[in-house]
Amino acid sequence: MREKIDSLSNRKIKDTAALATRRGRQKQGRFVAEGLRLGEMAAAAADAGWKTCYALYTADLASGERGAKLLDTLEAQGCPLYETADAAFRKACATESPQGILIVLEMKQNGLESLQNQGESAPFYVVLDGVQDPGNAGTIIRTADAAGAAGVLFTKGSVDVYEEKTVRATMGSLFHLPVVSGVTVDELASWAQEKGLQLLAAALDETARPHFACDLTRPTAVVFGNEGNGVSAALLVRAQKVYIPMYGAAESLNVGTAAAIALYEAVRQRHFSA
Amino acid sequence: MREKIDSLSNRKIKDTAALATRRGRQKQGRFVAEGLRLGEMAAAAADAGWKTCYALYTADLASGERGAKLLDTLEAQGCPLYETADAAFRKACATESPQGILIVLEMKQNGLESLQNQGESAPFYVVLDGVQDPGNAGTIIRTADAAGAAGVLFTKGSVDVYEEKTVRATMGSLFHLPVVSGVTVDELASWAQEKGLQLLAAALDETARPHFACDLTRPTAVVFGNEGNGVSAALLVRAQKVYIPMYGAAESLNVGTAAAIALYEAVRQRHFSA
Repeated sequence: MREKIDSLSNRKIKDTAALATRRGRQKQGRFVAEGLRLGEMAAAAADAGWKTCYALYTADLASGERGAKLLDTLEAQGCPLYETADAAFRKACATESPQGILIVLEMKQNGLESLQNQGESAPFYVVLDGVQDPGNAGTIIRTADAAGAAGVLFTKGSVDVYEEKTVRATMGSLFHLPVVSGVTVDELASWAQEKGLQLLAAALDETARPHFACDLTRPTAVVFGNEGNGVSAALLVRAQKVYIPMYGAAESLNVGTAAAIALYEAVRQRHFSA
Repeated sequence: MREKIDSLSNRKIKDTAALATRRGRQKQGRFVAEGLRLGEMAAAAADAGWKTCYALYTADLASGERGAKLLDTLEAQGCPLYETADAAFRKACATESPQGILIVLEMKQNGLESLQNQGESAPFYVVLDGVQDPGNAGTIIRTADAAGAAGVLFTKGSVDVYEEKTVRATMGSLFHLPVVSGVTVDELASWAQEKGLQLLAAALDETARPHFACDLTRPTAVVFGNEGNGVSAALLVRAQKVYIPMYGAAESLNVGTAAAIALYEAVRQRHFSA
């Protein structure tokens, strides 16, 4: 199904623009993936249970080879397509320089029970406790995917996984890696115990163990905290504190950087250790 | 010396606002560090040869304990201070929500010859070849500092180290770690040879060696490339290709993430390897 939208006051344009806020996303249970690349990954993720609701695109996008191909794929999947006049398209978009296509998808609201151990005998999870920056959160999902992690968990009060900037920063890994949001400290601790995971938490505390000294080949969940305040006290007391050693004058590491360093030490121990 | 500035058309306000562009910075040979924390680090870096030219601050900043202390420090260093009316201060600032103080400093225009081997017998350098995102560049300087690297080099055509967003993302590490900009491929290759450095370049190429398999205890310079196109062909042929292994569905890693992973594998080999 392909239709045209010209009017700025079209219902679909208003509904889509409303997805720029967390409130709007929660009300509709939907979110937006913008751009060709992310759109291609969203379309490819249909098999993994990601449902596309509809797509808006510009005439310009449809005239390009790559854009036309993506539209055909979406159409074959039964996704309604709306060719949208430029002004209306800009109104629907959250980004300042949109690429001519946005896809609206249904959010997945998975709980901890959805995290199944898929083949890997010793899963590795990243937990983000109060991380606020969407770029950091998205980059960590991307890195966790690259490192072969089993999933990323967000505690209650963390940034919204479905914010457009987070989705964009995942570079499509959101569609591949299990992500669970809104977890409480109690739920996390019970789940870790039940699954036999060692629960580690990053702390700027030199009484903590260097992450290099941890056995990351074991089933593990490692927690990284808020950009300013670190991991919450309630969670720290339930976990073993680890720190990433620092040598220069820097006082801390970016949370995305810290998570990447820990994830790849796990990769090394699991795949490159003699 | 403390003076007041009320007018939006004051010369200092215009000069400072002009530092938001690369052209303005190059013309004046100066750049801006905004905010309390960065200001404190700039003041502390006077011993390391960073020269503060002047500071603009708001009355509100001066009334706080931490702000007053920073102003005293700057005054004792002979830095001219201008209490600036709010509207004029906002005009001078590049950031949208400034913290009430900005310090203008002289840029350091160091060449490769300035990189002295300071005690560490086997220096480790990061080279950014065409990296464009100021946040990525700044984060890499911060991570390189934390990992005890000897310096960060930027090839010609890379993002400006002195852009406000880059400076901010370094979290002050710019003031600690030697940074050299505008290096050509020929200069880099000659310098690496002369210094006896192994020259490694990150490539999304599975014929490359995994970085885990490289001996990073040797004197090393490792090159990371542009966000979209990677390391330039001219540089790739002069270097040994390395890659960071990936396991999930992610097609690549953020350049800041990749640099952090390589830097911390060097830390591990140098400090945590039996």
